[in-house]
Amino acid sequence: MPLSFLNRMLAERDIPSLMETALGHIPADLAIVNAQLVNVYSGEILSDTAVAVKNGWIAATGHLAPGTIGPETRIIDATGQTLIPGFIEGHTHLATLMTPDYFIPHAVRHGTTTIITETMETYPVAGLEGVMDFLASIRHQPITMLATAPALASISPAGSRMSLDDLRTVLDHEAVIGLGESYWQAVLKEPSLYLDRFRETLLRDQVLEGHSAGAGGAKLMAYAATGVSSCHEAISAKDALERLRLGMAVMIREGSIRRELAAISAIAEQSVSCRRLLLVTDGVNPLHLLQDGYLDAVVQKAIDFGFSPVDAIRMATLHVAEHFQIDAVVGGIAPGRQADMVLIPAPDCIRPTCVIARGKLLWEEGRDLPQVQRHSFSESSRSTIRLGDAPIDAGRFRIGASAAVSQVDVRIMDLITELVTKEAHLTMPVVEGLVCSDPTQDILKVAAIDRRYSPGKTAVGFIRGFGLRSGAFATSAAWDTTDIVVVGATDADMAACVQRIQQLQGGFVVCNEGKVLAELALPVMGLMAQEPAEIIREKMEAVTAAVHALGSKLSDPMLTLTTLTTAAIPYLRICEEGLFDLKSGQFREVFLS
Amino acid sequence: MPLSFLNRMLAERDIPSLMETALGHIPADLAIVNAQLVNVYSGEILSDTAVAVKNGWIAATGHLAPGTIGPETRIIDATGQTLIPGFIEGHTHLATLMTPDYFIPHAVRHGTTTIITETMETYPVAGLEGVMDFLASIRHQPITMLATAPALASISPAGSRMSLDDLRTVLDHEAVIGLGESYWQAVLKEPSLYLDRFRETLLRDQVLEGHSAGAGGAKLMAYAATGVSSCHEAISAKDALERLRLGMAVMIREGSIRRELAAISAIAEQSVSCRRLLLVTDGVNPLHLLQDGYLDAVVQKAIDFGFSPVDAIRMATLHVAEHFQIDAVVGGIAPGRQADMVLIPAPDCIRPTCVIARGKLLWEEGRDLPQVQRHSFSESSRSTIRLGDAPIDAGRFRIGASAAVSQVDVRIMDLITELVTKEAHLTMPVVEGLVCSDPTQDILKVAAIDRRYSPGKTAVGFIRGFGLRSGAFATSAAWDTTDIVVVGATDADMAACVQRIQQLQGGFVVCNEGKVLAELALPVMGLMAQEPAEIIREKMEAVTAAVHALGSKLSDPMLTLTTLTTAAIPYLRICEEGLFDLKSGQFREVFLS
Repeated sequence: MPLSFLNRMLAERDIPSLMETALGHIPADLAIVNAQLVNVYSGEILSDTAVAVKNGWIAATGHLAPGTIGPETRIIDATGQTLIPGFIEGHTHLATLMTPDYFIPHAVRHGTTTIITETMETYPVAGLEGVMDFLASIRHQPITMLATAPALASISPAGSRMSLDDLRTVLDHEAVIGLGESYWQAVLKEPSLYLDRFRETLLRDQVLEGHSAGAGGAKLMAYAATGVSSCHEAISAKDALERLRLGMAVMIREGSIRRELAAISAIAEQSVSCRRLLLVTDGVNPLHLLQDGYLDAVVQKAIDFGFSPVDAIRMATLHVAEHFQIDAVVGGIAPGRQADMVLIPAPDCIRPTCVIARGKLLWEEGRDLPQVQRHSFSESSRSTIRLGDAPIDAGRFRIGASAAVSQVDVRIMDLITELVTKEAHLTMPVVEGLVCSDPTQDILKVAAIDRRYSPGKTAVGFIRGFGLRSGAFATSAAWDTTDIVVVGATDADMAACVQRIQQLQGGFVVCNEGKVLAELALPVMGLMAQEPAEIIREKMEAVTAAVHALGSKLSDPMLTLTTLTTAAIPYLRICEEGLFDLKSGQFREVFLS
Repeated sequence: MPLSFLNRMLAERDIPSLMETALGHIPADLAIVNAQLVNVYSGEILSDTAVAVKNGWIAATGHLAPGTIGPETRIIDATGQTLIPGFIEGHTHLATLMTPDYFIPHAVRHGTTTIITETMETYPVAGLEGVMDFLASIRHQPITMLATAPALASISPAGSRMSLDDLRTVLDHEAVIGLGESYWQAVLKEPSLYLDRFRETLLRDQVLEGHSAGAGGAKLMAYAATGVSSCHEAISAKDALERLRLGMAVMIREGSIRRELAAISAIAEQSVSCRRLLLVTDGVNPLHLLQDGYLDAVVQKAIDFGFSPVDAIRMATLHVAEHFQIDAVVGGIAPGRQADMVLIPAPDCIRPTCVIARGKLLWEEGRDLPQVQRHSFSESSRSTIRLGDAPIDAGRFRIGASAAVSQVDVRIMDLITELVTKEAHLTMPVVEGLVCSDPTQDILKVAAIDRRYSPGKTAVGFIRGFGLRSGAFATSAAWDTTDIVVVGATDADMAACVQRIQQLQGGFVVCNEGKVLAELALPVMGLMAQEPAEIIREKMEAVTAAVHALGSKLSDPMLTLTTLTTAAIPYLRICEEGLFDLKSGQFREVFLS
């Protein structure tokens, strides 16, 4: 049973130097003095506190011994400021849009010193080698970077192909501390696919992350009985409470995909223990990162919504550490813990002014973002768009019907929210043996094209609610599959988009009348750009503006597009094998019989 | 890195049967219905709750699905009763007075379903083989029995001889989940002796149990910085708070050795988080066990002292499980947890009426104690009193001085409480070259005789405050050493006591004028009787009555005697090497120079 690098560091840190520093026999490297301290263990806000740091670890807190501060000790006078533990992100997807090495500096600047990221995106499109390359990209960073292994719930058989051996290899990676989210419907539908993986995880004393969107009652209990110990999909105080009662950690999600704090905060007024409530983002895209910040903004919001400052801070520090059983190392300010700390103006004003990780002052107000380790992704990780030998042309997106009929009943994906689809039935005209998009009725084509296991394998259907009046929009960053997904008013523009994605080896592309209107290249696994957030934001804005210019009124068309393939959001989805009904777990034909 | 049997059980339990039971597809083995449930996770008391059990694990809680209860399901109607998780004892010493197999039935009857015991007593007197034999005695029991490895702080070099290899063997035992209490003074005095052991423990992702009696300020911080994560030695709310602030778990001790609840309960009125407060006994002897009960009595007392029922129950269930990182298995009532549950009349009335462990109804009101696995201790564990070839006679306890002087200044152990000694200096007469006891002044002899590594090696000194007017009192169950310890008014009775202990292969013996007045045989490692609690109690009462009859006014002379050798209680102690001053860490001569 391998130990995570975090626990190994705990076992192997230089304890005598910490003891000597606490006793005042040798001077600290760094001391923060005169701080108001949020003690997440006792739940108190303590005035006039000092913290001494040696070799990256906390040696002493409270009133320091004479001698702990020596002439060589770097002193930070925190008079009038509040010291809190560095934030811990408990659930995010860093293999999204920007590479971790460009994301981390922003996380630091916003007070986050530990991140636990999913890796599920990387396996379908880049295999075990891709997962290991991604994990390599988060190692040797100035903050603590941990990960969960892919659980691989996918509607596509190709997306579910991870072998147990590959899983063991990932679970044994020193940065991995659990198995990532396993969608509940998939687990309940085919327990045998998942339980072996759960067992491998539990045998390593690691945690099982959950995803129980919409589950309740007996089904939720059955899911909890598997040992899954968290859920980040509660959307109401009622959902949250039901999960807490079952012993699960409830990760309140507040990020780019969804924002649940407003709804779940009602729980703060009930006399319910928040010890297993956590604050997570589930991913913050460069737009939101630059505009709102990161966990600092989430914690601030939790306070604004009625959680006490101590509880809100704990929900993004100690509670996360406890859930992942890493609280001996991170999550609080006490002797023997890693020196991860943040200064803020006051307990209820979560605006980091100084961020210390592993005892190093990484950032303070007015300074540039910190430097981090830039990772060279492998050639293989940078060439993941394999579409086969057949040309990607308009013909690929044709939907043929019998020439003998004038109309046909079809099954379409109907966007009933910007993310949720349901199945709708329409009667459409057949013209020269073809069923075509009808942008005037907002009936577009949607296609998914495998880019790895069956290169070029394509399924085509219809979608309503996307709103393009002309052109097409495609991405290689489709969730949970190996697919490029494309939505379009014309077959030719759909082909143009996919061709361009192939050239870029990944990205988002908007085309109209054969021309590229906007694009964001994502050459790393077809998922990530290795560029600064500001540049990615600019391109995201251009892509979104282009989609809007083509008529879509979706607030975040990039997100709507990427989620069309996921098993995580109900009800009718698409992959290279066809339309998939999540409720029944069955593929569906476009034509109603 | 080996996994504890508990985590292995979690990984390997039959999850499909739990899922099917939760979903109502197959019937539960056992269902408790109409219960008021103390939900330790959410902190709520929920009415009208049901719990379904399958194969020893909890499948569902709350409102059961139709079908979960079938014709074969055994139903317990808990109308009017309250269901709580089985108690978890976080710190005790089961290798004391009675063997675990006789203790466990009482623990069960009083609502305890998990016990984490120290093993430190067994190593000095019986070696690795003895530790493994003791660990074997707690396996295959109807409740969950876990242990910590000996950390071996001893004033005697012989008592500290555990090799790292032996420690590794014990840490790798499937019942072991941490390193037992490491006395803080010893750790601070000789970190090198301990830190290797801490590292071995942390490398196994196990916990380090602490013991920081009397420590505060910089010294306590230095101790906390080693990674030690608990202390059961706080004796005031102030002590407790200082430790909580340092991120330690505070185990409030309420047992036969000390009772701290009254003092520490003041913390319940402060706005301090009790999430790292635990209730433990540190050992309950047969007298108290039969008279007061076990953790049920402690939790009741915590409620009576002002903790809310939910907090008090959590402090003996979930909080303990979280501290030892076993809360995925025990400590609460939720799907996927081991089915360890207790019915009580009401949340504030902790009187178990029905105890379920691993899904089996082990005890209910009016029934006999449950049967458990009786262990056959090895021949080697039953022959641990080795005193060498030299006769144990009165001469062994003589203290000779120069015949040329008529008096001499001596250093004595002075009992300033029933457990704490300090060094006192007296002038005593020399008669025919000997310094003798003087029972008229309450000056008795005290001796420690090694029974393992240097068989028969003896140190003799003086003690004041024990109160024997004649006779002697000896035990082989001296704390933290390999010694028999004996206190006496005459050298001859001291010899008689030790001879009898040798015959018994362990025990407590009271002699007067060469005759045995009372005795309690402890043939298992010289520490334990393998007999029912009632019989041991009777003999303890007889021993205590005999000591009282000889003049002692100590309330618990057995405890006072056994602790004379410990490094855990200040200040002057004795072992086979001589008197030992804990403050300086030095041996001291009887004669003042």
